[in-house]
Amino acid sequence: MDDLLRFGKQALASQPFSVLIGAELTDYAPGRAELTIPITPQLKQQHGFVHGGVISYAADNALTFAGGSILGPAVVTSEYKINYLRPGIGTALVARATVVYSSKTQVVCRCDVFVVSERKENLCAVSQGTIVGLGRPSEAED
Amino acid sequence: MDDLLRFGKQALASQPFSVLIGAELTDYAPGRAELTIPITPQLKQQHGFVHGGVISYAADNALTFAGGSILGPAVVTSEYKINYLRPGIGTALVARATVVYSSKTQVVCRCDVFVVSERKENLCAVSQGTIVGLGRPSEAED
Amino acid sequence: MDDLLRFGKQALASQPFSVLIGAELTDYAPGRAELTIPITPQLKQQHGFVHGGVISYAADNALTFAGGSILGPAVVTSEYKINYLRPGIGTALVARATVVYSSKTQVVCRCDVFVVSERKENLCAVSQGTIVGLGRPSEAED
Amino acid sequence: MDDLLRFGKQALASQPFSVLIGAELTDYAPGRAELTIPITPQLKQQHGFVHGGVISYAADNALTFAGGSILGPAVVTSEYKINYLRPGIGTALVARATVVYSSKTQVVCRCDVFVVSERKENLCAVSQGTIVGLGRPSEAED
Repeated sequence: MDDLLRFGKQALASQPFSVLIGAELTDYAPGRAELTIPITPQLKQQHGFVHGGVISYAADNALTFAGGSILGPAVVTSEYKINYLRPGIGTALVARATVVYSSKTQVVCRCDVFVVSERKENLCAVSQGTIVGLGRPSEAED
Repeated sequence: MDDLLRFGKQALASQPFSVLIGAELTDYAPGRAELTIPITPQLKQQHGFVHGGVISYAADNALTFAGGSILGPAVVTSEYKINYLRPGIGTALVARATVVYSSKTQVVCRCDVFVVSERKENLCAVSQGTIVGLGRPSEAED
Repeated sequence: MDDLLRFGKQALASQPFSVLIGAELTDYAPGRAELTIPITPQLKQQHGFVHGGVISYAADNALTFAGGSILGPAVVTSEYKINYLRPGIGTALVARATVVYSSKTQVVCRCDVFVVSERKENLCAVSQGTIVGLGRPSEAED
Repeated sequence: MDDLLRFGKQALASQPFSVLIGAELTDYAPGRAELTIPITPQLKQQHGFVHGGVISYAADNALTFAGGSILGPAVVTSEYKINYLRPGIGTALVARATVVYSSKTQVVCRCDVFVVSERKENLCAVSQGTIVGLGRPSEAED
């Protein structure tokens, strides 16, 4: 396992909420990040689908990690939007985020969230957002 | 407690992920919904703040409930965006969503998420999104 | 007319595209901005409604001016989202943006766009976005 | 020229605002649309860059055309978000939208907007949004 992936796995393991969700960092390289979340009963809503909040968590966190792969670990997601496409029915969620633009202080990323069912991936949600570094005075440090 | 609030509390209690998060529906009326989430250690990220995924969950679910107050219980959030404003440091999150426009099939809502600290509310995130009814053929039923 | 409004009107008049659209700055104060656009035939799409691009322009530019009322004139809109609610049928568009949060480098605003018909305003679109100051190294200065 | 492109060019030519902007439909096929806008002085803001409103128009309209390539001509953009990445400095804007998901009533698309300078394309903005068909009762027909 390379250093960035090892480092990212440690960062994820240090987030209690990510541990609660059961998220794993399954790929991490400069400009991209992949989170995988096994779908367990506690992640569902009343109709048996994955709760939208879990899909949002996956997109948000994958975006943040992708941004951090460029800007370093001190980053936050500043904003993002998400479109839900299909109900999350399956065995796992896979969120893949890629950097589309970066400056010294900010990265814009996109993320595709797939739901895995019978070993096939179906696109479940698409997202786009901004990740900012905290190495400058920022609204996130107020 | 009125019928809509009682009904909404039951709906929330039937979502395993909402139970896992510890969300409570604290206000529910036609055109608006309020979710309150006590901040527990398991909802945090590595710096001790509430994880952004929890804030997103709060906004997303409050938007959905606000939409459902107009369209009925069979609704899903189709899309939304969120801007994070301040780190979530405090004892609880309060997400208040209001309907800004509704048609027969769709509702557009805004949501303000506050973090409560020493009995004072600070605006923590702002969100805007679309909730669609499932009473028609829809991408959410594919 | 106060200084900020006078200053803003000059800034708007210096934007050739705003002159082409026919936009007027009709209110400008710390934390808010209002643009008014008389609806002329050239601003329409094929069905006789105002083109969505004009509504987007109105929201985008009102957001930028609202941000500039706090951060000063050297600002750009970094990102925004918009939900179209009603077709733009009437005599004018009025876009009102307000600041919901500001730090030293960034402002988050919301904007309501109304269409005026028979002296009545109807909500036509709602928007939310981020305005950043250019007084720091920024992706907008690359 | 194939039928869809010819049809799309006629649709664009019937939008007075698109004629005012000077937009051309330069590619149109099931699932994608490309708009090209020569950068003229009247499309600029006070610093000599293309006005953000023009970039938004390009993204919005390319998204709508991409959606229409699947759903038919009676469509509207319901919502979208856009991140501005670089100032629009060059000779033309090129907006390329692609469909990422479609149902019978709704399409989700992404759009990349490039600015062309010295025959090189630079990514200038990225966008994501929802296009809805008007063949059903809709908020756009109120």
